[in-house]
Amino acid sequence: MTAIDLNSDLGESFGAFKIGNDEEVLKYISSANIACGYHGGDHNVMFETVRLAKKYSVQIGAHPGFPDLAGFGRREMKLTPREIYHLMVYQIGALEAVCKTNGTNLVHVKPHGALYNMAAKNREMADSIAQAVFELNPQLVLFALAGSELASVGQEKGLVVAGEVFADRTYQPDGTLTSRQEPNAIIHDSEYAITRVIRMIKEEKVEAVDGTDITIQADTICVHGDDPQALEFVTKLKQAFQQENIEIRKSWRPE
Amino acid sequence: MTAIDLNSDLGESFGAFKIGNDEEVLKYISSANIACGYHGGDHNVMFETVRLAKKYSVQIGAHPGFPDLAGFGRREMKLTPREIYHLMVYQIGALEAVCKTNGTNLVHVKPHGALYNMAAKNREMADSIAQAVFELNPQLVLFALAGSELASVGQEKGLVVAGEVFADRTYQPDGTLTSRQEPNAIIHDSEYAITRVIRMIKEEKVEAVDGTDITIQADTICVHGDDPQALEFVTKLKQAFQQENIEIRKSWRPE
Amino acid sequence: MTAIDLNSDLGESFGAFKIGNDEEVLKYISSANIACGYHGGDHNVMFETVRLAKKYSVQIGAHPGFPDLAGFGRREMKLTPREIYHLMVYQIGALEAVCKTNGTNLVHVKPHGALYNMAAKNREMADSIAQAVFELNPQLVLFALAGSELASVGQEKGLVVAGEVFADRTYQPDGTLTSRQEPNAIIHDSEYAITRVIRMIKEEKVEAVDGTDITIQADTICVHGDDPQALEFVTKLKQAFQQENIEIRKSWRPE
Amino acid sequence: MTAIDLNSDLGESFGAFKIGNDEEVLKYISSANIACGYHGGDHNVMFETVRLAKKYSVQIGAHPGFPDLAGFGRREMKLTPREIYHLMVYQIGALEAVCKTNGTNLVHVKPHGALYNMAAKNREMADSIAQAVFELNPQLVLFALAGSELASVGQEKGLVVAGEVFADRTYQPDGTLTSRQEPNAIIHDSEYAITRVIRMIKEEKVEAVDGTDITIQADTICVHGDDPQALEFVTKLKQAFQQENIEIRKSWRPE
Repeated sequence: MTAIDLNSDLGESFGAFKIGNDEEVLKYISSANIACGYHGGDHNVMFETVRLAKKYSVQIGAHPGFPDLAGFGRREMKLTPREIYHLMVYQIGALEAVCKTNGTNLVHVKPHGALYNMAAKNREMADSIAQAVFELNPQLVLFALAGSELASVGQEKGLVVAGEVFADRTYQPDGTLTSRQEPNAIIHDSEYAITRVIRMIKEEKVEAVDGTDITIQADTICVHGDDPQALEFVTKLKQAFQQENIEIRKSWRPE
Repeated sequence: MTAIDLNSDLGESFGAFKIGNDEEVLKYISSANIACGYHGGDHNVMFETVRLAKKYSVQIGAHPGFPDLAGFGRREMKLTPREIYHLMVYQIGALEAVCKTNGTNLVHVKPHGALYNMAAKNREMADSIAQAVFELNPQLVLFALAGSELASVGQEKGLVVAGEVFADRTYQPDGTLTSRQEPNAIIHDSEYAITRVIRMIKEEKVEAVDGTDITIQADTICVHGDDPQALEFVTKLKQAFQQENIEIRKSWRPE
Repeated sequence: MTAIDLNSDLGESFGAFKIGNDEEVLKYISSANIACGYHGGDHNVMFETVRLAKKYSVQIGAHPGFPDLAGFGRREMKLTPREIYHLMVYQIGALEAVCKTNGTNLVHVKPHGALYNMAAKNREMADSIAQAVFELNPQLVLFALAGSELASVGQEKGLVVAGEVFADRTYQPDGTLTSRQEPNAIIHDSEYAITRVIRMIKEEKVEAVDGTDITIQADTICVHGDDPQALEFVTKLKQAFQQENIEIRKSWRPE
Repeated sequence: MTAIDLNSDLGESFGAFKIGNDEEVLKYISSANIACGYHGGDHNVMFETVRLAKKYSVQIGAHPGFPDLAGFGRREMKLTPREIYHLMVYQIGALEAVCKTNGTNLVHVKPHGALYNMAAKNREMADSIAQAVFELNPQLVLFALAGSELASVGQEKGLVVAGEVFADRTYQPDGTLTSRQEPNAIIHDSEYAITRVIRMIKEEKVEAVDGTDITIQADTICVHGDDPQALEFVTKLKQAFQQENIEIRKSWRPE
């Protein structure tokens, strides 16, 4: 039977600045990517989010980002590969300690924002990220854009890599996401989006914008929870999974 | 044979802002307290400092502080006991990860600046700090002002506590340090300072400012390395230790 | 005819972190206290908020706070009087420049959060704050808790001081606000709150918690706009003002 | 008689993190570029540096940078032209207020680090910077790399632009500085460097790396003061100026 993971970015609030609706989202997902204090989150928020993820039996991942609170980690930064490696180790280590004192474990790592996007294309950055994850704990699962440089490099290191796909985005013939600048980047029809996701999971195929089919490894789907519509979409998605006999994944290891 | 540890605060530079003379100091000491990015230090500096400490076979400790770069962690902050616990876990976890990827281990934890001073007197803060250390790893050694609340609480939790003493400071009859505001707070005569330290180590006694003797547990001495005179003092101190058959401590565990 | 000012704290968002509902609130108030980048706000948010305040013909004030984004300026900081003076000048200067390039003027200054509360009782801090305002521009109006140390010191310096009152808070016989820790600190009955405000404005009197009447200088009322109920209350308040022939103040200078 | 300005970057310390030897450097220069709290400096350091500049009768300029303390403003940031304009206004406004309360005036503005280098080539950024300076005060002098986009744009806006030259750097035939990556970027022979500077001032010419002469507008020379050798070089430079009848410039306005 086929299985899929649903992940969401959580724990991004900072002090009095609240972002998201974390406790509600946790009821729908199987993996939580928790901010580590660089682009969002702080030591208090991290504890609270880990506690909530544990309460809802959601797997916990680190969501390290660029050290750029003002830009929420979405601005490209030109750092050396060495510094990328350092900031990954620092943030994963901090969250791992929060997990440990909460009696739970870190399961995966997903780079955030500009770090994620840059590492999808830049092999040197991808190497720094995968190396940091591997050295800290080779059992950690690396979440990477399906088909990206980061996914390849992670596999070469020997990490379990979860290919991440997006239900509401279109793909280019080379497997990359269509830039948000393009008019056809976003899929607004939720029925169509769900049909595409199911095909990605069952057939490992998705139709690119030029009409050709491309192969895609769909292990985890990124979902948002910032508004009621987003949660409604996730509900529909999970209903479709049930009809199609697609399970929500419980573990990343082969049985 | 009696043994003593020499510790120093290192890794406090931040980006282009350089503090201290770390590589030189590491030649003289046995324990390095490494800043964790809150009051000083950053992910790059932490890696470099751990690498250097390993090179000179100096034991590594975390030196977590208040989240206050502008005040260098020296300003009192009123945080909840819960937040103190969170910030300890975050910082220790980050440094532990840096140690792990450098193939070395974290040995001790010493709170920094205002956090250290407040926890010496405030039982609730002391409890948060000791609890964080214990939960992360009960084998970690807690460095605390000799005779302080933090030292007591650490021992009650079951931690090995290293009593820290200061060669160049005078003591009150109750065992606390004379405030730097007082004219007699600092000992300027280095010969006299060395004599006192040796008595603290051998007899566990030091003369307070009122002439009475107090009992003091001297396990580790805090030394500075910011100027040539400071390093000259450490050299003299180590010569005196040799004459008095006092060893530099290699480990915190009983043989 | 009697006049009153309605002020609100705005421009507190920071990058991707959104706080408040600024454009909606601006439709109801006469003075906007705009954050200056220390406890909240950033250079982009400041420009946008000044632009909006100008659009709605709302008078602009600086809302300087402690340099503490993580604590939103609500945590007490022990800074020297000199540093308080410096941080006031820095923040007011920055906002004044934003006003200038938007073709408008800074009218008032209201310290934020813990800075406001501490200066209400601490004469030395109050002096630093009032001195900074006076030296930058003696025409600036100082917003201070009615009857506070800051109000007195401001008047002694020669500043126009606007006494700020709170519609939903109770008062102690000495004119200070009842601490939020106390069960009777908050007034939940909006009719009663409005009756009290009108008496403060018309008679310069308010009943303290012990039943005695105290004298209070009500020049400006602090209102919130974070939820629909808050805006409903402001609407009711303004209707009551109309019935009572109380005008919304257009200027702080005598005609 | 010909005149030249000597400028240096000062006030870059941050809290306990000390950079530079400001009071010593101020004895040698005519213009101080003072950091404004984004890449370095803080409200306390700004007051102290303005006070010292005034004491030594050195003209004061703002030295605004990217909001990047960890990178000291030396890392390229991709910000919108609008945000560049905002951060210029904020920082200049803050320093102008510090000048005002010290009884002195802001004379010039020189962008810092990556902001300076990017604006030398990028017309859109140059426009944001020059526009901010002009709108705040059209009497402010804009310091820009001689021959750069920023210099051109500043002049087009109607600003007085001071062309900045470097004594120890070589030039390309197109007037740009040779990249520090190149082996011939730096001039190590101080006699030769001084001869070149004097020719730049008297003849408005400098020999490029290919042996051709290029025209250069030398209004101000950037000098460093971080080590004894740097100050020795400035001393020699000033002696050469005296012999050559080149005055240190007192004002940017024609008499």
